[in-house]
Amino acid sequence: MAAGQDNLTAVLYGINDMRLEQRPISEPNDIQVLIQMEVVGICGSDVHYMTHGKIGPFVVEQPMVIGHEAAGTIVKCGKNVKHLQPGDRVAIEPGCPCRMCNFCKIGKYNLCPGMMFCATPPYDGNLCRFYLHDADFCFKLPCNMDFEEGALIEPLAVGVHACKRAHVKMGDLCVVFGCGPIGLVTMMAAKAMGAGKVLVTDILDMKLQKAKELGANYTIKVDPTWDDVRTAKEIQTMLKGAEPDCCFDCAGGEMIVRTALQSTAKAGKVVLVGLGKFEMNLPLTSALIKEVDIRGVFRYNNDYPTAIEMVRSGRINVKPLITHHYRLEETLQAFETAKTQKGNPVKILIHANPNWRPS
Amino acid sequence: MAAGQDNLTAVLYGINDMRLEQRPISEPNDIQVLIQMEVVGICGSDVHYMTHGKIGPFVVEQPMVIGHEAAGTIVKCGKNVKHLQPGDRVAIEPGCPCRMCNFCKIGKYNLCPGMMFCATPPYDGNLCRFYLHDADFCFKLPCNMDFEEGALIEPLAVGVHACKRAHVKMGDLCVVFGCGPIGLVTMMAAKAMGAGKVLVTDILDMKLQKAKELGANYTIKVDPTWDDVRTAKEIQTMLKGAEPDCCFDCAGGEMIVRTALQSTAKAGKVVLVGLGKFEMNLPLTSALIKEVDIRGVFRYNNDYPTAIEMVRSGRINVKPLITHHYRLEETLQAFETAKTQKGNPVKILIHANPNWRPS
Amino acid sequence: MAAGQDNLTAVLYGINDMRLEQRPISEPNDIQVLIQMEVVGICGSDVHYMTHGKIGPFVVEQPMVIGHEAAGTIVKCGKNVKHLQPGDRVAIEPGCPCRMCNFCKIGKYNLCPGMMFCATPPYDGNLCRFYLHDADFCFKLPCNMDFEEGALIEPLAVGVHACKRAHVKMGDLCVVFGCGPIGLVTMMAAKAMGAGKVLVTDILDMKLQKAKELGANYTIKVDPTWDDVRTAKEIQTMLKGAEPDCCFDCAGGEMIVRTALQSTAKAGKVVLVGLGKFEMNLPLTSALIKEVDIRGVFRYNNDYPTAIEMVRSGRINVKPLITHHYRLEETLQAFETAKTQKGNPVKILIHANPNWRPS
Amino acid sequence: MAAGQDNLTAVLYGINDMRLEQRPISEPNDIQVLIQMEVVGICGSDVHYMTHGKIGPFVVEQPMVIGHEAAGTIVKCGKNVKHLQPGDRVAIEPGCPCRMCNFCKIGKYNLCPGMMFCATPPYDGNLCRFYLHDADFCFKLPCNMDFEEGALIEPLAVGVHACKRAHVKMGDLCVVFGCGPIGLVTMMAAKAMGAGKVLVTDILDMKLQKAKELGANYTIKVDPTWDDVRTAKEIQTMLKGAEPDCCFDCAGGEMIVRTALQSTAKAGKVVLVGLGKFEMNLPLTSALIKEVDIRGVFRYNNDYPTAIEMVRSGRINVKPLITHHYRLEETLQAFETAKTQKGNPVKILIHANPNWRPS
Repeated sequence: MAAGQDNLTAVLYGINDMRLEQRPISEPNDIQVLIQMEVVGICGSDVHYMTHGKIGPFVVEQPMVIGHEAAGTIVKCGKNVKHLQPGDRVAIEPGCPCRMCNFCKIGKYNLCPGMMFCATPPYDGNLCRFYLHDADFCFKLPCNMDFEEGALIEPLAVGVHACKRAHVKMGDLCVVFGCGPIGLVTMMAAKAMGAGKVLVTDILDMKLQKAKELGANYTIKVDPTWDDVRTAKEIQTMLKGAEPDCCFDCAGGEMIVRTALQSTAKAGKVVLVGLGKFEMNLPLTSALIKEVDIRGVFRYNNDYPTAIEMVRSGRINVKPLITHHYRLEETLQAFETAKTQKGNPVKILIHANPNWRPS
Repeated sequence: MAAGQDNLTAVLYGINDMRLEQRPISEPNDIQVLIQMEVVGICGSDVHYMTHGKIGPFVVEQPMVIGHEAAGTIVKCGKNVKHLQPGDRVAIEPGCPCRMCNFCKIGKYNLCPGMMFCATPPYDGNLCRFYLHDADFCFKLPCNMDFEEGALIEPLAVGVHACKRAHVKMGDLCVVFGCGPIGLVTMMAAKAMGAGKVLVTDILDMKLQKAKELGANYTIKVDPTWDDVRTAKEIQTMLKGAEPDCCFDCAGGEMIVRTALQSTAKAGKVVLVGLGKFEMNLPLTSALIKEVDIRGVFRYNNDYPTAIEMVRSGRINVKPLITHHYRLEETLQAFETAKTQKGNPVKILIHANPNWRPS
Repeated sequence: MAAGQDNLTAVLYGINDMRLEQRPISEPNDIQVLIQMEVVGICGSDVHYMTHGKIGPFVVEQPMVIGHEAAGTIVKCGKNVKHLQPGDRVAIEPGCPCRMCNFCKIGKYNLCPGMMFCATPPYDGNLCRFYLHDADFCFKLPCNMDFEEGALIEPLAVGVHACKRAHVKMGDLCVVFGCGPIGLVTMMAAKAMGAGKVLVTDILDMKLQKAKELGANYTIKVDPTWDDVRTAKEIQTMLKGAEPDCCFDCAGGEMIVRTALQSTAKAGKVVLVGLGKFEMNLPLTSALIKEVDIRGVFRYNNDYPTAIEMVRSGRINVKPLITHHYRLEETLQAFETAKTQKGNPVKILIHANPNWRPS
Repeated sequence: MAAGQDNLTAVLYGINDMRLEQRPISEPNDIQVLIQMEVVGICGSDVHYMTHGKIGPFVVEQPMVIGHEAAGTIVKCGKNVKHLQPGDRVAIEPGCPCRMCNFCKIGKYNLCPGMMFCATPPYDGNLCRFYLHDADFCFKLPCNMDFEEGALIEPLAVGVHACKRAHVKMGDLCVVFGCGPIGLVTMMAAKAMGAGKVLVTDILDMKLQKAKELGANYTIKVDPTWDDVRTAKEIQTMLKGAEPDCCFDCAGGEMIVRTALQSTAKAGKVVLVGLGKFEMNLPLTSALIKEVDIRGVFRYNNDYPTAIEMVRSGRINVKPLITHHYRLEETLQAFETAKTQKGNPVKILIHANPNWRPS
């Protein structure tokens, strides 16, 4: 790249201290590609890092580039890169594992202890103009998919992984608790993988309405004062006694997990996607005598191809998730919107290509 | 059978009201066999029904024959029975499912809502002289196995099912919490299925000693005042930092489940075999971000052949579990021993054949 | 039923000796239902029994009622039947297993040696007015499905089973060899289960045309003079070098199996649905060093709910498969059409309800 | 290493042209280790390369170091290597995959098209004094295992992979066709994984005798004039009608595959470990209607830990496989013995450490 080329970059320096600054552009090593960033979505975790400076054990201790839901255009390829070439449009899977530990070797690289994941301290993210990434974690976009869809593959991959963990199969009855972005993609992934009917819950009408537009078969507006027994009863009534095969907690709440454990059918699955408070009081026995499995979700592995195929084939339309657009230069406003939830954002996208024009 | 033939039967009439009485002997239907009972083990659940009159939703509301860990000799076969003939010695799998529901059709008959399980109200058990059972749930004993081993197949099948649920594989590092009979069979089943090393815990030296004799590689005597963090640390120290692939709660305790959730390796399994208190305060998140699965065990299915093979092949020796012998006529004393734990019983057997002589 | 009630029945007496005759109507036993038959499809095996008197080891040695692709209305229920009641419309899974062998117990009842399968000697089929069947193998039709779709669930279940055997997953590239009814349902099932693209082959333009209408992405007209190398090359060219994950032989041919073994990608599956000649000359090594699995399909198990769901949800439209309609009284003409293939039948349906009127 | 240090190396220059020559010793890169070679076994493929110059598509086109069944001592570690240090004794998994293709990412790295496998052209093997290898494919030997056992992990891993492909489970009845080294390790692995009984066949008494010593339960001496029907009948007689769950072809013969397809029980597996002639005439249908799966084996993946655990735990004793010992300087004699089979070798080991003394 020409020296001094524009590489405006969004860097989190500390709590509520996000700055836009120029960073140098590096050359790709043998297995990397240099990517001109096009679209980067804002994730709840990005906002959490900005407002709290950490998530669990991950603490922002030095300035960190933010952003990990991204798509871009290949500009330059390392010499060993064969499946990509300049001009290719790609969705970027944000984590590169060590490739050598036991988890990597058996194909569960999401559990790799050496994982380098965009915008998880101490690793930089990709909300910038130009970014280097390992080529094998860049996935070519089919010609009928645009960069906005490409950026949304990241959250969708979480939903896909959740549904794979749940072994969703043709005709399954599913319940998704929580209709934030992750709840919505989980619902859509479940349907794409064959779920017969999906019931969703939330405490806000607006979110249930969005879920309905995106394909939810049943909705329950949960009153925050309800206990698990009450919610379980509402579910039972709504489903006319049928018991869900898979329940997904996409909000991370004790009352949700309690409800799920009691509602799920024998041999069913409770998959916990959202992280709630660390300690929960749970009626575990009620699930266990039904041989209901309780499974967690940590990011995803080998799910990008599945997620891309769901969008390519039209099984899933992620476009309605997008509610707000900003330019890279407007990153601070974008995060402000994400923080305040003003305008009821679902998915906020930041456009990193200076040539982008709103359509 | 000749009218008036001896069919002494142990019947639970109510709390602490066990009676021995004569019952008529019926004819097998087309798919049943009549079995002369030989050996019946006493299970913790039998004792619990005697002392509490119920287990969870199962309430003894009418006199119920007790006993379900049993082996016997075929006396008569229904006309459609082909794989058995009079004289065959069999281990009896105590539950007969409906054979028609979805769970039966997919091979998970342990979850069949129409299951008729010996000595689970309202179904009679088999602590008697003669007993009818569906032929396909009677398994011929190999010639190198005796009736005592045959009766012990029932608890062993629980251990086998727990290990199958945990997907124990060659070289796995396992922890078994609790060294009662179910803890011991789970430990032995884990080793037979390939576990590399098994660590066991208990609060009693005597039980740890038995576990060691039966093959435990490491033992930890847990002080009842320890919290989960302390126990987890002891485990970590004992294993020199290696993390267990599978943890089995065979005692049913909140502190155990808490310890297991924190100790288990990424992608590992926590299998809950014992049932503890209904509500538990749990650090669920610590397990979920590791994608540790939490799985319950409800009895067993298709595990009798596996359990028999483990004993037949010498991979497991169940004989050291047997500590006490009684005759059917001494059933009340046998249960007294089970209740009081006088003489530190592990497995108490009742001999139902009047010709039995102590060896 | 009133004595003398009409129960016109199609009975195969021997080669090319099909007769319509009145048969008595029996009462259901405790677990059976009496069904008023509505629609019965003709299968290739029905025609083969008529023209050859046998299929492999199954020989028609006494008059046998023909028909096994069927749907009907419940008229009467045995006293233990709970999930059905008179008036319910059902698809009939034509095989009832012994429910007691090892295969039944583990959920692979299609391999049950005691299977009683409609219109497989010596068991009668259901091309008649009234028919008895085990209730648990009758599946209630959703309100948006009619009897014609109900009858087509049987062949569709074969396609579903084939795709489950192949582990078809989201985005898989599949090849279906042969576009007869089984090839078509296999193609549709593959797409419903997530296949990204399906290539089909046949030797007839007309059949390829039908496949295209039903969703095939690529078609290859195979010249009967081509060898496997030539066909493999055509596939490779059509797919631009991409290798299929799953290949289905739905025609039963040596050249097809040869082609499939060579075309399938590493770790892929070759599933043989159609039965060809007994001895085949095969380049087995070419598949094995790729760890390509070769798997057979014998009917189906637990696949009716999946197949019904595919149609209910609109993922599959089986209606275009139906080309011909006959009344029960016209059974001989229907079989004549099936035999001669005059009018290029795909699926021929026989309407067993005397009140049926062509729409 | 000091310049000019002894690195005697066995290099195959062409057909029957093996030479011992000095080669330079290189430095490990960041993820490699330098290994002082201790024991290298001779594999049938090594001999085949020497006598034919190729195996299938793999052709020796330039001088290639031979040897891939090896164990050694770590001498030096690349800077990113953490789990090993100088002095560690290791078994060497001979293939290093690309770590970036889809097969690598899903944990099936044995199918990686970029695999670099010792002594498979164009990659050098490790029959030399000093050798560089990726650290993560070096497995520390437990303290109770020596280098000879370490070298034998390689063939044992093939047996383990074959048994994993067959899903061998507790009590399975297995048949292993062919009692060469791979047949023997497959038999031992099957027993370690729970096989109840294993029947082995061979055409030589001597080989059957060795199999018996190592644990075979039944042996059949196959007359080379027998056809598949005859052999199948002998198996049936020997097993008293019981049908094998898993059949392993470890000799690579058409008659064997034919026999296996016909003998295997419903839902069983036929696993092809040995490679026979390219074209075989097979009664495929006989296997397919039983839903018997036919599966190939290409090397192994993630099987070294399993194989090492089997030896460490005493489940398998590989020592009796070793029949001959040579020094590195005697490599040509060692290969001569392997070629002529004089002295009936099973496993021939070459000792690469100049300090080795016969025990």
